[in-house]
Amino acid sequence: MSLTIRLHIAPYKTLNLSDINKTKISSFSTRIRPKPIYHSNSLIHFVYDKPKMLDSSNPVESSIPSIKSSLIEPDGGALVDLVVPESERGARALEAESMPKVRLTKIDVEWVHVISEGWASPLTGFMRENEYLQSLHFNSLRMADGTVVNMSLPIVLAIDDETKERIGSSKNVGLVASDGDLIGILRSIEIYKHNKEERIARTWGTTAPGLPYVEECITSAGNWLIGGDLEVLKPIKYNDGLDHYRLSAQQLRKEFDNRQADAVFAFQLRNPVHNGHALLMNDTRRRLLEMGYKNPILLLHPLGGFTKADDVPLDVRMEQHSKVLEDGVLDPKTTIVSIFPSPMHYAGPTEVQWHAKARINAGANFYIVGRDPAGMGHPTEKRDLYDPDHGKKVLSMAPGLEKLNILPFRVAAYDTVAKKMAFFDPSRSQDFLFISGTKMRTYARTGENPPDGFMCPGGWKVLVKYYESLQVEEAPKKPTVLST
Amino acid sequence: MSLTIRLHIAPYKTLNLSDINKTKISSFSTRIRPKPIYHSNSLIHFVYDKPKMLDSSNPVESSIPSIKSSLIEPDGGALVDLVVPESERGARALEAESMPKVRLTKIDVEWVHVISEGWASPLTGFMRENEYLQSLHFNSLRMADGTVVNMSLPIVLAIDDETKERIGSSKNVGLVASDGDLIGILRSIEIYKHNKEERIARTWGTTAPGLPYVEECITSAGNWLIGGDLEVLKPIKYNDGLDHYRLSAQQLRKEFDNRQADAVFAFQLRNPVHNGHALLMNDTRRRLLEMGYKNPILLLHPLGGFTKADDVPLDVRMEQHSKVLEDGVLDPKTTIVSIFPSPMHYAGPTEVQWHAKARINAGANFYIVGRDPAGMGHPTEKRDLYDPDHGKKVLSMAPGLEKLNILPFRVAAYDTVAKKMAFFDPSRSQDFLFISGTKMRTYARTGENPPDGFMCPGGWKVLVKYYESLQVEEAPKKPTVLST
Repeated sequence: MSLTIRLHIAPYKTLNLSDINKTKISSFSTRIRPKPIYHSNSLIHFVYDKPKMLDSSNPVESSIPSIKSSLIEPDGGALVDLVVPESERGARALEAESMPKVRLTKIDVEWVHVISEGWASPLTGFMRENEYLQSLHFNSLRMADGTVVNMSLPIVLAIDDETKERIGSSKNVGLVASDGDLIGILRSIEIYKHNKEERIARTWGTTAPGLPYVEECITSAGNWLIGGDLEVLKPIKYNDGLDHYRLSAQQLRKEFDNRQADAVFAFQLRNPVHNGHALLMNDTRRRLLEMGYKNPILLLHPLGGFTKADDVPLDVRMEQHSKVLEDGVLDPKTTIVSIFPSPMHYAGPTEVQWHAKARINAGANFYIVGRDPAGMGHPTEKRDLYDPDHGKKVLSMAPGLEKLNILPFRVAAYDTVAKKMAFFDPSRSQDFLFISGTKMRTYARTGENPPDGFMCPGGWKVLVKYYESLQVEEAPKKPTVLST
Repeated sequence: MSLTIRLHIAPYKTLNLSDINKTKISSFSTRIRPKPIYHSNSLIHFVYDKPKMLDSSNPVESSIPSIKSSLIEPDGGALVDLVVPESERGARALEAESMPKVRLTKIDVEWVHVISEGWASPLTGFMRENEYLQSLHFNSLRMADGTVVNMSLPIVLAIDDETKERIGSSKNVGLVASDGDLIGILRSIEIYKHNKEERIARTWGTTAPGLPYVEECITSAGNWLIGGDLEVLKPIKYNDGLDHYRLSAQQLRKEFDNRQADAVFAFQLRNPVHNGHALLMNDTRRRLLEMGYKNPILLLHPLGGFTKADDVPLDVRMEQHSKVLEDGVLDPKTTIVSIFPSPMHYAGPTEVQWHAKARINAGANFYIVGRDPAGMGHPTEKRDLYDPDHGKKVLSMAPGLEKLNILPFRVAAYDTVAKKMAFFDPSRSQDFLFISGTKMRTYARTGENPPDGFMCPGGWKVLVKYYESLQVEEAPKKPTVLST
């Protein structure tokens, strides 16, 4: 069922939150699934597809038995699963013994994890050149049947000259971890040039030195990329005490079925959850209920792969998220906390598409997007690397994401009158305090408490403990001087 | 009518010419309209749509009266024409008097020319931010009806802080030439940030200093872009003696109708035509005839806007092209020579899409693409800026170009045995001489003759004369020293 709502807003600025405030739209139910209009001046269409079971002639109650993991179809129609069945692992390991080996970095293994569980469906391995070029130039892949799927980040495996030489004319290679353990096989390989400068420029929109993923993964990587079809010998595990949080895309879909979700809204994050985030997530749920959904489920989905050095580490964040649920800030009955295994690029508008696309594959049909998603400061200039509004604009127009409902953030800040996090009200802007990530870290580091109601006490303690432990670690580096 | 041909080539490298040679494909009629296949290993589909009149049950002769300028539809369905009707020009000029003015550079005027004649259809003016972002990230625009058109280059107008200030809250601006003459009006304007670094990185895949278009147009341009709907007071003319060559997209479509073309194949160039080019164009025509087309017309379409300093100037190239037709190397009966008004970006795989897309709008349904289209040397490193094969690969997969038949070049070189330009035969590679543009210019500059059969004598004389004139101009710069 397709529902079309027309609103008059002039000029055309679909996603500008301040405009939306001005036009007094009381519910964002009219703002989901914006489809950009070409050179339109005054008429905006917002179209979204409601699941069939919400058809008014077909009450939810009677249709619950028909709820499937198909609130939203995986890209390409079927979720990719590249883990070799247990019964065949021995034979594959034996077969791989004679293959040339490619040694994977920690981040390569994170990508193997991502691909093997179908987060990047329909991708069935590291990209060959045709996929790489489409990703780089079009942020999407055209399938054999003419349909288009989103694919904004090149998911590639770099090898050096010596490895390329060693592979020679072999068709298949074995993929091994840094300790030499066999992780998987890449079949029908294709080796092509790794033009790092072009890859960086087209992915990040800058070639300035200091981009975290580039420094970590690209600068010192080999001059060749190797693509092919992936097989993984067994599910990737990290044995860091957090594997139980790492639900695969398939497991998440099953969990949404088990909970009889009729809407799933995903929240991507790589930071601690404060009460502004919580307000936003709870408000989203409230509005989904208002729209007629009976059981919207929140997927609180922290990113678990590579992050930059000054981000809060995954284990601390997971502990903090647990406290947020324990303290009742988010409702465990309607929330699933799970780890998204992807590494972080900090590539702004290009990367936010990947974050949304991967959640489609995990069964989320609503995606929350905020200010400057996947952004960071420019590495060499005193400004944001990306225009903070570009992320949601690009996301709303991205090829292959038409089926996903995009929910733009409302800006939350600390309301010094109500003494809690609240949606920013521009008519009394002087009452609001914006607490940046840097500010938050400064509070935690110096032991100063943030304003009451900024974060639940249990969650805040986790952060304070983490920053205290950092100071203990850092302390011995400083010369011990007795003050006189 | 859709015609599908399947070929077995393993591994999958659709457009690699050396592979095509190896598989002994005798006619490229089997290679047109390649549609990329996702993760296929051994089976390649090539699909092309033949015009209806070539349906075997519907002989060409009987259908000629039905030939329209619709061998291929303009992007968006209708060719954009933004020139104000003569009867209304006075009123518009009067109206513009009270508008804030934006002063255009020479290259801005070239873009006004391009947009106003519909080469960039369905674009109706300089890009607003939503179009700019789609162009930058997706190389395409999604229309209100969900269809996608190709749009790989940002077609934008930069203004500085002072101009932005002067425009204030005006909705419309007048566009004036450097001499102050009113050229047109931009209506319902939108002003947004011009992030030059990001624009350059995403368009060129590098931010290295020395890119000709960047140095000429972007580095010193303003920090804002202004988009809106364009009206042009009268057709853009240059009064350089070449305006009669500047057929609009609409005029070209009419000319193809007049000639009763049943196929139009476009050849984009910015260099003199040598006999290797001619061989290729004549061979293309021969093969189109073999495929059943009765009257294929060649659009020889030199680029007429900004080019870099060491390219041969437009007037010299036009004189050289005339000689090529006079000398009978190309047949004037089946060739239309016209100037493509766009400036040159030298942006390789990104720009070749623009070159092809603009020719769709002019009615060409076949597009010839060669090695490293729109490429150049890297400005700071000793290598090609782009992988020479990427242009045709990207073009063959580009969103919105599915309806265009892409014809990859066969490589031509000087056959020292046959003493003429011929298709390169790898089995006797020692017999072939590759004459680069640099080599050709060296011949012309030093007065040395290239090998017989490299270029028709009339065309060669034009080049020699041009390079002689350069030496005369350059001479006074050198100190005059009497040798003893």
